[in-house]
Amino acid sequence: MARPGEFELIARYLAPLASDPAARGLIDDAAVLSPSADKDLVLTKDALAAGIHFFADDDPGLIARKALRVNISDLAAKGAAPTGYLLALALPSDWTEDWIAAFTTGLKADQERYGCSLLGGDTIRSADGLMISITAIGEVPREAMVPRAGASAGDIIFVSGTIGDAGLGLVLRGDPARAGDFDLSRSDAERLVGRYLLPEPRVALAPVLRDHVRAAMDVSDGLAGDIGHMCRAGGVAAQIRIDDVPLSDPFRRALAADPSLRTRAVCGGDDYEIVCAVAPENEAAFRKAAEKTGIPVAAIGRFLDGAASGNAPVFVDGDGRPVDLGGTSFAHF
Amino acid sequence: MARPGEFELIARYLAPLASDPAARGLIDDAAVLSPSADKDLVLTKDALAAGIHFFADDDPGLIARKALRVNISDLAAKGAAPTGYLLALALPSDWTEDWIAAFTTGLKADQERYGCSLLGGDTIRSADGLMISITAIGEVPREAMVPRAGASAGDIIFVSGTIGDAGLGLVLRGDPARAGDFDLSRSDAERLVGRYLLPEPRVALAPVLRDHVRAAMDVSDGLAGDIGHMCRAGGVAAQIRIDDVPLSDPFRRALAADPSLRTRAVCGGDDYEIVCAVAPENEAAFRKAAEKTGIPVAAIGRFLDGAASGNAPVFVDGDGRPVDLGGTSFAHF
Repeated sequence: MARPGEFELIARYLAPLASDPAARGLIDDAAVLSPSADKDLVLTKDALAAGIHFFADDDPGLIARKALRVNISDLAAKGAAPTGYLLALALPSDWTEDWIAAFTTGLKADQERYGCSLLGGDTIRSADGLMISITAIGEVPREAMVPRAGASAGDIIFVSGTIGDAGLGLVLRGDPARAGDFDLSRSDAERLVGRYLLPEPRVALAPVLRDHVRAAMDVSDGLAGDIGHMCRAGGVAAQIRIDDVPLSDPFRRALAADPSLRTRAVCGGDDYEIVCAVAPENEAAFRKAAEKTGIPVAAIGRFLDGAASGNAPVFVDGDGRPVDLGGTSFAHF
Repeated sequence: MARPGEFELIARYLAPLASDPAARGLIDDAAVLSPSADKDLVLTKDALAAGIHFFADDDPGLIARKALRVNISDLAAKGAAPTGYLLALALPSDWTEDWIAAFTTGLKADQERYGCSLLGGDTIRSADGLMISITAIGEVPREAMVPRAGASAGDIIFVSGTIGDAGLGLVLRGDPARAGDFDLSRSDAERLVGRYLLPEPRVALAPVLRDHVRAAMDVSDGLAGDIGHMCRAGGVAAQIRIDDVPLSDPFRRALAADPSLRTRAVCGGDDYEIVCAVAPENEAAFRKAAEKTGIPVAAIGRFLDGAASGNAPVFVDGDGRPVDLGGTSFAHF
């Protein structure tokens, strides 16, 4: 079957995604933004490779949406509203027009969901597997970007949603038979795999973070590792009550079958939740504003003086004893 | 030999490239730009893959510089001055620290040369070969970006520098023994290969384009194909005098040995010269301003009424007869 050439592919599948005049309909060599004087632009770039960040045979629409959403998750954690993105798509030699149609349909759905559009990019041939690189652009009021650094000793550590689902979902996506090891029903397993395949960036929390937190980031490489990044960036330490880390119902059922999942939850990746530092005096206002978004948030510990404990997070059990995580954070690399 | 992990690699090799405060030292999750109210931002994204756009065993510093320069070339053609870039680097499993050191040394050299710096990005593992995706950001005075569309019938087509060197350089890079077919000395062959390995983006022409041309783009996919893009974007046609297309001395010597190179020059890729549309009344001012940059420019033809001839460029010989290019433009895809 004949496949479209590069320029037909752009005209047929990508140009319809470029609804912002800044994209110039993808017929120019660059996008042009005229930022307003009261806004800062927030830029982030996450790349994903087949066989590393997703399975080559995953649904193309879900691959597209995940690639966009992991970038939007970064923007949300910085308090930014997504406005646009540039896409580099490296296609393996066996790409098909149907695959592209499904991929771009996925992008279209999420552009509409998150209020952003394609600004430009590049479509190339990959020597081997599919690779996707997205640069996403968001806006915040001037000087309002929420930093990773900035947590102070005494700040409360909050996390959104539930942790560990996507890490367990990845295990089940790789080997569906493992559902039996965890006594999981089919629908529980599907929910967990769904969390791996399609994260839910917490965009509704972005203004809440801008107004009420001192520091934030999204949890993509594992809660333990990412809190470690916040500690090093802010020169603080952290103590986290592992029993307070919020877990979903399917995850709790798996945990009943395999207690080792408690520590694995905080080391797995792909959660795309928000972790943030809230000053005690802002706790009530933060909780109230978060509640209005409908996204649950849970206090799981405190940031501590870093000089005393080497800028490393410590997880403790219900009796305050340190928990050995027995591993490191999830590494894509 | 132990290799650094992702975060060490960033701290040791990439953070030193992130000199702009907007990059937050690469310790945040995003870059933040506070654009000035009198500027527009120009964004472009070009991706390169080993085995497609460069040879996996090319000098890592040259790979880095080419990846950055092809993006800067896009900015220059839009009249924009580069300010920063985001880099996604997908590393094959056999990457070495020496390779990274050489790659980032190349980036550092060209950052300094072009006055831009690293703003952020992502480092991932590739399932197979090296891939590089760069989003480059430039600035123009508000509403001054030079478009691809905009050429009018009667405008003079100018091209910078010389055309065809890199296309021939690619042949010689792939098979150095071919130098004999073209009667080329070793130094001629090296100059041509050099033009393929390391393009010279025409940044000095950026302000000249803003002031004196109606439309421009960089020549990356072959002069014939790229003028075709300008014709379609602007709804015009074009007539190009193939004998007036500027050629370098080494290329002329090769042409003497193989006359078929005349047409191949305008179909090869990787020139990274500028092609632009100059209104006849602006010709003198354009030539004068270009001359001050030291970059030669040559008039090679005219844009014509598009309705009559279907928005396609026609190359003619010295007697005005159409030349059959016998091929299409260079396709990366």
